[in-house]
Amino acid sequence: MDKLKIFAPATVANVSCAFDILGFALDTVGDEMTFTKTTEKLVQITLPENSNLPTDPLKNVAGVVAIEMLKKANADFGVLIEIDKRIKPGSGIGSSAASSAGAAYGVNRLLGDIYDNAELVQFAMLGEALASGVAHADNVAPAIFGGFALVRSYSPLEVIKLNSPNELFCTVIHPQIEVKTEKSRKILKKNILLKDAVEQWGNIAGLISGLYSEDYDLIGRSLQDKIVEPVRSLFIPLFYDVKKSFMDAGALGGGISGSGPSVFALSRGEKQAEKVAEAMRKVYSQTNIDFDIHVSAINSVGIKEI
Amino acid sequence: MDKLKIFAPATVANVSCAFDILGFALDTVGDEMTFTKTTEKLVQITLPENSNLPTDPLKNVAGVVAIEMLKKANADFGVLIEIDKRIKPGSGIGSSAASSAGAAYGVNRLLGDIYDNAELVQFAMLGEALASGVAHADNVAPAIFGGFALVRSYSPLEVIKLNSPNELFCTVIHPQIEVKTEKSRKILKKNILLKDAVEQWGNIAGLISGLYSEDYDLIGRSLQDKIVEPVRSLFIPLFYDVKKSFMDAGALGGGISGSGPSVFALSRGEKQAEKVAEAMRKVYSQTNIDFDIHVSAINSVGIKEI
Repeated sequence: MDKLKIFAPATVANVSCAFDILGFALDTVGDEMTFTKTTEKLVQITLPENSNLPTDPLKNVAGVVAIEMLKKANADFGVLIEIDKRIKPGSGIGSSAASSAGAAYGVNRLLGDIYDNAELVQFAMLGEALASGVAHADNVAPAIFGGFALVRSYSPLEVIKLNSPNELFCTVIHPQIEVKTEKSRKILKKNILLKDAVEQWGNIAGLISGLYSEDYDLIGRSLQDKIVEPVRSLFIPLFYDVKKSFMDAGALGGGISGSGPSVFALSRGEKQAEKVAEAMRKVYSQTNIDFDIHVSAINSVGIKEI
Repeated sequence: MDKLKIFAPATVANVSCAFDILGFALDTVGDEMTFTKTTEKLVQITLPENSNLPTDPLKNVAGVVAIEMLKKANADFGVLIEIDKRIKPGSGIGSSAASSAGAAYGVNRLLGDIYDNAELVQFAMLGEALASGVAHADNVAPAIFGGFALVRSYSPLEVIKLNSPNELFCTVIHPQIEVKTEKSRKILKKNILLKDAVEQWGNIAGLISGLYSEDYDLIGRSLQDKIVEPVRSLFIPLFYDVKKSFMDAGALGGGISGSGPSVFALSRGEKQAEKVAEAMRKVYSQTNIDFDIHVSAINSVGIKEI
């Protein structure tokens, strides 16, 4: 294979109670990336003209992933990566992860599929480390595996693809303010109360159980986060108004997407998710904050060739 | 119904990483209890002659549960509860829970099954509060529901019966030393590191996922506890030797049962669980500590009429 084009999905990480261990992939929003083999043993990046992202491959998340993969595989070719960046950087729906995971997937195809999904996650984490200083996997794992992906352990890295009930839809609103992942990580307390942790892991266990048993109400009841949300929500204007709006509109539950500022809600059925979008839209319409809204099924396959 | 006899199972709570939220029921060890309606509106308790437990119904866990249930139901009869106590008190395999849950089940039958399982758990928790000062549900819930029972939330109380893979067997060793639940609760730190909590909830999510997907190795890899086990194991002589012995013998994983001193291991298949029992036995045989060993399938139905 000398050339391919892919869709690399946006992802929602953390998923309320499941901070740092869980994420899921979206279907209607993602980057498009084209990979072309070159005879020159170089990685080259192109981006849309209006993009502020670096095209220097050593400074671009897709670039660092591709360089490492080609080096490890001792490849005798280079790659041109054309990124049609559709996920806004800093939105909290896995913008850097989509490019990182997309690069891992695309380069692996050009290499003849020599790496498995777990290895692709590890390569993609290099991009995450460049973007945020932390090589987290809870966005790149669902981007690559699709569906709900659990990062059970980092050493060794273990990703588990969970069951994903097919009536589950996600609504995400992205208020266009800047929240740096690094900053929203620093604000977290290093210590937490054991009793809060116990409450949190009851909800995590409930969420995983609800995903497998396809108990939508249990999924909703389990989407509670006493540890991270109360702190990170400080960075998100009108967070609790948005939350109230989606719960009143009939969402199962929701929370901060990644480290914000996007806010997500899960609903049963697409119509319900649209209703939730309407309710969220109303909240920000009363402000001067620009925003995007996405409604999407859970993307069960991850990255797709298009 | 005027009389019934039941088997009330021993239970393993905490289950390593899932401190305070999860427990499962055993099949081969439990109390036998006989309930007889009496015209006198009293609760009476009888116990084997060699038992040190109180027969005063206000001081006996089964007694307080029965009194409250009869009172709430405005019953026009009393109950004689004959307890054939087979689980050693203080063993860490839900001795007080078996009697409490058994009382809730038995009295409910005499009342004409007016309460559901979730309500029975709440009545049984009164017995747990008397026994240990804390109304925890992670032993009484699996005793009543059977299988693996998750206590997702305490307010309101929500118990979820999880899938239980049928090749899963448990080996429990009870070194006959005294560990008071209260004391082993006090030793726990009130604060924990967020990063340890995140590691723990990755394992909890892995354990629940493994139970549903019947992935025995995943269940085993997830049985890791960095928070409670390192502290409570101090009370259990040779804990790490026992742990090494069962892992070397091929167990999937294990840990402290409840607040100890019993230690449990999960295995795939009964033969493997017997092999694990042999390995555990060897460790304590070299000491002057008396011990019991039980090998059991997971009891999927909970309390049974016999």
